[in-house]
Amino acid sequence: MRLAVLGAGSWGTALAAHLARSGHPVALWARDVELVRQINQERSNPVYLPSFPLPAGLQATASLEDAVAEAETVFVVIPSAFCRSVYRQLRPVLGPRAVIVSATKGLELGTLRRMSEVATEEVPGRALAVLSGPSFAVEVAQEQPTTVVVAAADLTVAEAVQRAVSSKHFRAYSSGDVVGVELGGALKNVIAIAAGIVDGLGHNTLAALVTRGLAEMTRLAVALGARADTLSGLAGLGDLVLTCTGGLSRNRRLGEALGSGKSLEEARRLLGSEGAHMVAEGVGTAPAACALAARVGIEMPIAFQMRAVLQEEKAPRAAVEELMLRTLKRE
Amino acid sequence: MRLAVLGAGSWGTALAAHLARSGHPVALWARDVELVRQINQERSNPVYLPSFPLPAGLQATASLEDAVAEAETVFVVIPSAFCRSVYRQLRPVLGPRAVIVSATKGLELGTLRRMSEVATEEVPGRALAVLSGPSFAVEVAQEQPTTVVVAAADLTVAEAVQRAVSSKHFRAYSSGDVVGVELGGALKNVIAIAAGIVDGLGHNTLAALVTRGLAEMTRLAVALGARADTLSGLAGLGDLVLTCTGGLSRNRRLGEALGSGKSLEEARRLLGSEGAHMVAEGVGTAPAACALAARVGIEMPIAFQMRAVLQEEKAPRAAVEELMLRTLKRE
Repeated sequence: MRLAVLGAGSWGTALAAHLARSGHPVALWARDVELVRQINQERSNPVYLPSFPLPAGLQATASLEDAVAEAETVFVVIPSAFCRSVYRQLRPVLGPRAVIVSATKGLELGTLRRMSEVATEEVPGRALAVLSGPSFAVEVAQEQPTTVVVAAADLTVAEAVQRAVSSKHFRAYSSGDVVGVELGGALKNVIAIAAGIVDGLGHNTLAALVTRGLAEMTRLAVALGARADTLSGLAGLGDLVLTCTGGLSRNRRLGEALGSGKSLEEARRLLGSEGAHMVAEGVGTAPAACALAARVGIEMPIAFQMRAVLQEEKAPRAAVEELMLRTLKRE
Repeated sequence: MRLAVLGAGSWGTALAAHLARSGHPVALWARDVELVRQINQERSNPVYLPSFPLPAGLQATASLEDAVAEAETVFVVIPSAFCRSVYRQLRPVLGPRAVIVSATKGLELGTLRRMSEVATEEVPGRALAVLSGPSFAVEVAQEQPTTVVVAAADLTVAEAVQRAVSSKHFRAYSSGDVVGVELGGALKNVIAIAAGIVDGLGHNTLAALVTRGLAEMTRLAVALGARADTLSGLAGLGDLVLTCTGGLSRNRRLGEALGSGKSLEEARRLLGSEGAHMVAEGVGTAPAACALAARVGIEMPIAFQMRAVLQEEKAPRAAVEELMLRTLKRE
């Protein structure tokens, strides 16, 4: 099956490499012409996935039209802030029977749309799935056993994508709950920032935070139409545990920097200086989650505290103390 | 409030120290006369909680009768294998209005009883609560922020215990779901052994295991009368995350040793040689969980594989591969 992956960040590159290794011809689209040249000539992505050789079946291109021209399935793996513009460019060049798979974990600022909603608005009438779950890019590249969920409103679409992406090392499960799978992947980034801030307070505290975090993620997702058991699955709990405890997460590292007294600007610069120009999606998702929570009238104490921290209205440690020291009550 | 803590292992000692620091006079019972002498003279527990000074209000004793004579609340923090015998000794010496709080995380082999059921059988007619949640003993001793759940059939009992144990650093939530709180604490030890075995397979795999683990824990607990949301709370998910990712867990370390090719006997000896003669409760809980699952007719794939590994019927890595490579399906 001819595939395209849009976005050559660490996750896009790792996913493209995995798909190519599984025997599919894969076109990997990047806007940056120099990065395209490096990928095709050096057979690696030195910026976002260094020291990892890319398989032969993967070809990079800076032309969106070339990337998707023959693609039966197009994976979109770009930061949420750029998704609408890329989908808009995609509309005139995408084949009529191509399936779109959104693998971006975030919400659109302002509109508060999930990425599949953005896709439907900009490229209407296409079969659409979302892919999410606990999947650090480096470990997928290393063929460490990884499991994800593919969800689509039409289960036959989810199952077709499931078959296309699954291998011995990479197991996909299918689901009909698009809302739950997308919100799980987006909201866990907010909790991960809090997990970074509590770093140094011990594992007991972190475990409590993960538990409370899943509870408020589930509350919001269910209010927006998701199934609770999706949030207890790989795309909710699984990804939350990975992001809060795995150590490789950008959002968690951002929280650690904030917790150690850095400003948001300094924390972002620190992440940038670690060798990859990576986006911590949780920074935008925190206010978006709070706005959604207000809209449906539910409480999200962790997200609210993180929004205040990110707006530099509150010191990170003070926010965490407030979360820990709520009055005695029933669980 | 005059309190007794039965069992001077790491968790019993840390809990007793916490309670004494909160201003309660605490009698800490240990069978070992030499350990009692060390605690009272050296003001530390060099065997189970080394390098941690014990507060003045804590007095150790080797006499069960003296320990509980005046106690209004008695915390039982001893390995599950010894609970029935200690409860039996407790019956004639316990005051008629004393409250029992079970903080042991395990099931009784053979009978498959939860520890509160053992307590009720041996010391009938007493007010009874259970205490569980993500609480590494060392971190409680260090006053790292910790949260637990106290459950009792009679919520006024749970709330009285909640007030007695809560401090700024140690937050207790109350619950009416004794079955859920006890099974969460017991069953997570089985998943933690599997978490140790998958060590080295990457964080993606571990996150998937934790997710699947909580699903099967919840399935069994609900079939036995627990509420699903208790398992999604501190005593289920919280303690599971702590035990599988926190690094300090005995059950997880036992799994690591098994995964690296050690026999069960060697793995247990290795834990013993780490300076403390600690019990990995999961070794007994795995077959007990499987027997309970069979009784109520539910599937627990991870527990079944761990039972086979612990009975040395299956190589650890083969068991994990079987768990990861189940056929494609809906989540």
